[in-house]
Amino acid sequence: MVKAEDFTFRGLNKMGDTNNPVGSNVTQVNVNQLPGLNTFGISMVRIDYAPYGQNAPHTHPRATEILVVIEGSLLVGFVTSNTDNKLFTQRLEKGDVFVFPEGLIHFQQNVGHGYAVAIAALSSQNPGAITIANAVFGSDPKISDDILAKAFQVDKEVIDKIQSNF
Amino acid sequence: MVKAEDFTFRGLNKMGDTNNPVGSNVTQVNVNQLPGLNTFGISMVRIDYAPYGQNAPHTHPRATEILVVIEGSLLVGFVTSNTDNKLFTQRLEKGDVFVFPEGLIHFQQNVGHGYAVAIAALSSQNPGAITIANAVFGSDPKISDDILAKAFQVDKEVIDKIQSNF
Amino acid sequence: MVKAEDFTFRGLNKMGDTNNPVGSNVTQVNVNQLPGLNTFGISMVRIDYAPYGQNAPHTHPRATEILVVIEGSLLVGFVTSNTDNKLFTQRLEKGDVFVFPEGLIHFQQNVGHGYAVAIAALSSQNPGAITIANAVFGSDPKISDDILAKAFQVDKEVIDKIQSNF
Amino acid sequence: MVKAEDFTFRGLNKMGDTNNPVGSNVTQVNVNQLPGLNTFGISMVRIDYAPYGQNAPHTHPRATEILVVIEGSLLVGFVTSNTDNKLFTQRLEKGDVFVFPEGLIHFQQNVGHGYAVAIAALSSQNPGAITIANAVFGSDPKISDDILAKAFQVDKEVIDKIQSNF
Amino acid sequence: MVKAEDFTFRGLNKMGDTNNPVGSNVTQVNVNQLPGLNTFGISMVRIDYAPYGQNAPHTHPRATEILVVIEGSLLVGFVTSNTDNKLFTQRLEKGDVFVFPEGLIHFQQNVGHGYAVAIAALSSQNPGAITIANAVFGSDPKISDDILAKAFQVDKEVIDKIQSNF
Amino acid sequence: MVKAEDFTFRGLNKMGDTNNPVGSNVTQVNVNQLPGLNTFGISMVRIDYAPYGQNAPHTHPRATEILVVIEGSLLVGFVTSNTDNKLFTQRLEKGDVFVFPEGLIHFQQNVGHGYAVAIAALSSQNPGAITIANAVFGSDPKISDDILAKAFQVDKEVIDKIQSNF
Repeated sequence: MVKAEDFTFRGLNKMGDTNNPVGSNVTQVNVNQLPGLNTFGISMVRIDYAPYGQNAPHTHPRATEILVVIEGSLLVGFVTSNTDNKLFTQRLEKGDVFVFPEGLIHFQQNVGHGYAVAIAALSSQNPGAITIANAVFGSDPKISDDILAKAFQVDKEVIDKIQSNF
Repeated sequence: MVKAEDFTFRGLNKMGDTNNPVGSNVTQVNVNQLPGLNTFGISMVRIDYAPYGQNAPHTHPRATEILVVIEGSLLVGFVTSNTDNKLFTQRLEKGDVFVFPEGLIHFQQNVGHGYAVAIAALSSQNPGAITIANAVFGSDPKISDDILAKAFQVDKEVIDKIQSNF
Repeated sequence: MVKAEDFTFRGLNKMGDTNNPVGSNVTQVNVNQLPGLNTFGISMVRIDYAPYGQNAPHTHPRATEILVVIEGSLLVGFVTSNTDNKLFTQRLEKGDVFVFPEGLIHFQQNVGHGYAVAIAALSSQNPGAITIANAVFGSDPKISDDILAKAFQVDKEVIDKIQSNF
Repeated sequence: MVKAEDFTFRGLNKMGDTNNPVGSNVTQVNVNQLPGLNTFGISMVRIDYAPYGQNAPHTHPRATEILVVIEGSLLVGFVTSNTDNKLFTQRLEKGDVFVFPEGLIHFQQNVGHGYAVAIAALSSQNPGAITIANAVFGSDPKISDDILAKAFQVDKEVIDKIQSNF
Repeated sequence: MVKAEDFTFRGLNKMGDTNNPVGSNVTQVNVNQLPGLNTFGISMVRIDYAPYGQNAPHTHPRATEILVVIEGSLLVGFVTSNTDNKLFTQRLEKGDVFVFPEGLIHFQQNVGHGYAVAIAALSSQNPGAITIANAVFGSDPKISDDILAKAFQVDKEVIDKIQSNF
Repeated sequence: MVKAEDFTFRGLNKMGDTNNPVGSNVTQVNVNQLPGLNTFGISMVRIDYAPYGQNAPHTHPRATEILVVIEGSLLVGFVTSNTDNKLFTQRLEKGDVFVFPEGLIHFQQNVGHGYAVAIAALSSQNPGAITIANAVFGSDPKISDDILAKAFQVDKEVIDKIQSNF
């Protein structure tokens, strides 16, 4: 039985808790929170940024993202795929909109003086998110430092140090 | 040649002009305004509502819509397809989110005391919009009053009167 | 267990009952009547038109329609989306074929001297249909006359009158 | 510039020429004949069957087909894929509808006393058709009789004989 | 509960049994053998060819195939659809890659001096395969020789003979 | 004009040059090398691994990958998305097959005694590849060390050091 409640999510005006190492918080409204999105290929998030905070480099394995700045100033960027690895960045102010193409690594950094807020939509009801640092250095169990030392071309001690933070 | 500008749209913080019969305005950010959206299946709009204004009943022929209230209070609703034609409505406050399934007739009405603002995303880079009253009674050229009188089960004079408004 | 019966529907040669206000009848052959269509993105309908009858303005939220006239003469038309709202029409005779693009409002009117019959196919196994007059003025519960009066730019009395017919 | 003519095809009431070895004719209405179908994932055909005629075993590489008998009686069938190769058949009379799932080998045979006519729709604007006998034994250039003799487990003379007919 | 085993299939290095009339064997790795492929639109096969063996003319109703020769020499080919029925062939050596477009009839023949091996991938987790000879002449139950005699333009005795082999 | 050459790529038996920091090489056969793949949703690669070499952690933004080991022994793994970041690994021998789901970070490491070779297929004719280390630490221009230091929770000196390697 369809109910209007299945199509409603309340409270996206609440600021997320940005008291964490990267100084940001993502509140998700996808099919897990809003069942009416099922099969419809779209979802939404609110992103809060503490001063100097960032939404660290990440990808969405199944979605393109369109983001609008609600409050504050953001530096946003994405990196293209092999072999160019070109970085595209923009400084966005309140009301500016930016697109992060499907699957590319992207980030946002708060470059204003106070808190910042963005609303973003994603082209999947279940877009997923892979925070690069956490997936690469903080997986469960850890990826062997042998592999990561060669991939990042540093000593295993550097890898071990980064892994110990996650 | 890819440029960061192709992925950027500026100025969605500007209030649209709601000085029109329905008292609302839709500012679109789709592939026509933001070329970087091409093939990505997503777009965004800002909707402004004057006091007592509404985004009149309409459909998007190629998209589902997810809407969040940025400011004010809205009564939102959609009607299911034949033969039920069930109306689902909700009153939304700031921060509330609602889903309008692909192709269904839906509307939003400003039920607060001042202006209202919503941001919505659509599951197509080119979703289209069909305002029912304008398409049915205001097409160019007009649909014959013979057809509309029978469809709406009223005299042709009533149809002619409505058509004269568009 | 797959059975040939799941791929068979019988009796589309039977005339539908057109004894109703619009003088038409749609006999559907979609996944609800013909389980073998599941996931295949296609379905069929037969449309009967009494003399002077019409298949009133409607949309299919999930399908394009291709129609062929089997008997009689039809005036067919569709209206494009905002902001053009262009009406395209054609007079079709027996054997003529017409396309109604996905999600657009369209109609057929019997303009011959007797009954008319069409066969149409739709690009979804579950295309849905939204009869504009019924969804807008005959929903359950009704859309408030406040909203509709402003949308159609007429007095609430006119809206109440139309709503009372559904 | 969109024109109503792009959405119109005239003359599907004309009987096709069935004076050929299999005694049938397919009149196509796909994106090649009807440009308005472009990207819409649907098309139509009329099939005429002389007495004792058949629409010989064939596949559509990009479409499911739904067929309705307009006149006469047909025996229709399709064969499932490896390793079952189950044949499903039905006898259809006027007004009966049947589904041929995407890519499967299927056929129709006129089993009535006079001419038969069917209208079918396909789930692609460009469905393609592969008549098995023509593609296997009548390709240009011919497939080597070495290959076909082993595939069909007969002497090359039998293959050569069949090939000489196409 | 996701397990690494669901994403693993072991033993594709084993030669398949080519002791059969066509002298080839296909080892499938699709969603039936490898559950982790579900919804991902890809699968794999290994094909072994005895000397003089062939992978007889067949189609995949839901997939394009890309094939690489691991060992030996193959003559490969596909036939386009109506009305051209053009045959395209190539001789492939170890390390050569070829594409068989979705739904088209295609084959491979061992034209080297020993066994041959190919690995192929298909653009569906459940591509299906229709071996033309088996589906047309070896279905269960058989297609009537009346239909096949007319389709292949030979006497029923020839059809009966071919059918008796399957 | 279609030509058999458009469907053919030669030489995937050639070993790629693994004389580089990670000790691996990917030879691509996608729509850029093989035009006949266009629109067909599939492509292929050959991956060579020097002793102790690896195909470093990377993602494909538009494809799932299915890989088979042709020679040698590989440790393969992928990491799930937020917030679990579960690492799934397997040791694969010659003939073993593994699936890397769309968009997830994955890698292969040569764990045998000599060179290793794999063939993999991807569910896109243009899958793209993002090598995490290169995109994050070696983009052009570089991502600011401010952002990366916070993301990876290390001093900027560590970031600068890693960046200097790319």
